[in-house]
Amino acid sequence: MIGSFHPPARTLMGPGPSDVNPRILEALSRPTIGHLDPAFIELMDEIKRLLQFAFQTRNALTLPVSAPGSAGMEACFVNLVSPGDTVIVAQNGVFGGRMKENVERCGATAIMVADDWGTPVEPQKVEDALRANPRASVLAFVHAETSTGARSDAATLCRLASAHDCLSIVDVVTSLGGIDVDVDGWGADAVYSGTQKCLSCAPGISPITFSERAQATIKARKTPVQSWFLDMDLVMGYWGENTRRAYHHTAPVNALYGLHETLVILQAEGLEHAWARHAKNHAALAAGLEQLGIEFVVSADYRLPQLNCVTIPDGVDDAALRQQLLRDYQLEIGAGLGPLAGKVWRIGLMGYASNPKNVLLCLGALDAILRQQGISLDSGAAVAAAQAVYG
Amino acid sequence: MIGSFHPPARTLMGPGPSDVNPRILEALSRPTIGHLDPAFIELMDEIKRLLQFAFQTRNALTLPVSAPGSAGMEACFVNLVSPGDTVIVAQNGVFGGRMKENVERCGATAIMVADDWGTPVEPQKVEDALRANPRASVLAFVHAETSTGARSDAATLCRLASAHDCLSIVDVVTSLGGIDVDVDGWGADAVYSGTQKCLSCAPGISPITFSERAQATIKARKTPVQSWFLDMDLVMGYWGENTRRAYHHTAPVNALYGLHETLVILQAEGLEHAWARHAKNHAALAAGLEQLGIEFVVSADYRLPQLNCVTIPDGVDDAALRQQLLRDYQLEIGAGLGPLAGKVWRIGLMGYASNPKNVLLCLGALDAILRQQGISLDSGAAVAAAQAVYG
Repeated sequence: MIGSFHPPARTLMGPGPSDVNPRILEALSRPTIGHLDPAFIELMDEIKRLLQFAFQTRNALTLPVSAPGSAGMEACFVNLVSPGDTVIVAQNGVFGGRMKENVERCGATAIMVADDWGTPVEPQKVEDALRANPRASVLAFVHAETSTGARSDAATLCRLASAHDCLSIVDVVTSLGGIDVDVDGWGADAVYSGTQKCLSCAPGISPITFSERAQATIKARKTPVQSWFLDMDLVMGYWGENTRRAYHHTAPVNALYGLHETLVILQAEGLEHAWARHAKNHAALAAGLEQLGIEFVVSADYRLPQLNCVTIPDGVDDAALRQQLLRDYQLEIGAGLGPLAGKVWRIGLMGYASNPKNVLLCLGALDAILRQQGISLDSGAAVAAAQAVYG
Repeated sequence: MIGSFHPPARTLMGPGPSDVNPRILEALSRPTIGHLDPAFIELMDEIKRLLQFAFQTRNALTLPVSAPGSAGMEACFVNLVSPGDTVIVAQNGVFGGRMKENVERCGATAIMVADDWGTPVEPQKVEDALRANPRASVLAFVHAETSTGARSDAATLCRLASAHDCLSIVDVVTSLGGIDVDVDGWGADAVYSGTQKCLSCAPGISPITFSERAQATIKARKTPVQSWFLDMDLVMGYWGENTRRAYHHTAPVNALYGLHETLVILQAEGLEHAWARHAKNHAALAAGLEQLGIEFVVSADYRLPQLNCVTIPDGVDDAALRQQLLRDYQLEIGAGLGPLAGKVWRIGLMGYASNPKNVLLCLGALDAILRQQGISLDSGAAVAAAQAVYG
């Protein structure tokens, strides 16, 4: 017989999920109601308005996909890409590679524009690819690369897409709520995120938004969307306005309670205040890491405050140190992905987890472990440097 | 500014979601941990074992899809059906029609075998279709039709599929936990369910299981699975055994806490006891409904105890009555779907919601409202008939 599961109480400073605000955990446990209940329809309307606020958009087609961010990515591709299409994909980390997979599984051709991991997408290369491929119909890129911690210039890239008559698909999984995501200001066409990063909700839902232009492309499709579950025309029968809320699939009711609560919290804090908080805690962590001789992979100009990708000091056993953090301090930080595996740590300061308590815990714990290994020599300097940033 | 959402406390006796056990609601609110945390890996292993128990299978490829039942259905089709294939789909309600959509979106041909809504799938018709279509590679059908409340003979249908060298895809969304679902005994190849029916967990997750034969078909595919998110070969890199638990997508951690807890509860009760409970509460409800002159759509031989599809008495306003139940008694029952809309109610007695308290509430409330309308003449007889069943 298997008994109930009681998770350890971790501090989550990896690449997501991040620490979940207890208010959101409590919201998840509110009584389930029906997915066609009048009270639930009101909740859906509020979630749409709150997501429009978070995305900074007036797009009517703004809603949460009932599955994780990977499904949100797939929703964008399967609805906007048809067999035989050409899609330009900028890749500077893991998630551009996943976009390529999506394009090819839609029966389309992906033209890859590669940049080094840890650098942003280079707009000139993208423009060259757009010029060289006049048949391309979509440009896809990642705003905030979770595998490297690099931020790309979404406004410029969306402008280039539009100038070359392409739709833009933008991954803001790690950016939404942590730094400026300005869907209408950028003129982005299809944008998806996740709940478990800077929204610091439980994982499992993917907020998405589609521009009028993207909606028109969906309506003009000649072939059906290959996914029934992610077909936006059908999903809108349930989530759209002025409809009878036709049943499509059963909404994940309690997960949406959590998303609603996290967006209510974000609205109360205000977007600019949330971004400023992420910037400040990043500055404090960076000051402390410098004292430990730990360096950033990404140059300061393109660095994500919410995802600190840093090189592992020489002689330190990656896995052993992370295990020790987990065992002795209940603290999770992230490992490297792909070519960065074993070379970097990814320290998240996302959403609710972006706070001085976590910064000091992480620096103090790293300091203690590195001191045991003879690497940190000036005990306490890292924490003091962070404290100085807070003033 | 939008405030927190506090749902009304409903009693859920529709076609799902059903009432969620407070133990499960509490489990949803336990602290989130990372999807690669050693403690989470243990949880995953336990969930796999518990799902094998619930499905009555030894299939190694048994896991929860990170999305609702519709995505579980899609996972079965996109992994097992390739472009150009022929699939025989038995349809006796809404969900057979959805299977057809899935087949066609895979670039395959669906041969439909139609039966009247409210009747089970007729094995002879299926056998005729299998004989007439020797190129068919899959037979798909719904074990428990949520739109009508009819149970089909899964053992016979799976045997027919196997005899004609076809894989079987079986929808047990509404049956799992409520009546016998015997995956290995049936010899079924791909089986999917949902969490919000007789498992009475929050909606949003789809348990699935694939036989060895189905796994071999996936491995032998010549074209990639069209969905990256639902590609079982990739998903197994995370959920499979003897692997490094490679990151695929971020698991819905808290939703899986809930699924684990509901399966722990089911294991403690025992499958046979759960089925007997569903049968008994159904008998009590049926005895009461008879007193109210309300008739079942499905004949007793094929009737699902967990989903009671009954005709609306002449002269009763469907929507008005359901609204009154919701307003005056906080009680949700389900409307009809498709051709049954406006003609039937679907009264669920699923999982935790299958209990004497709900039976008496439903009968008492219906009795009171129908008495106001001059339809129920013998006040109290319905409740008394149900009480007599409980003894």
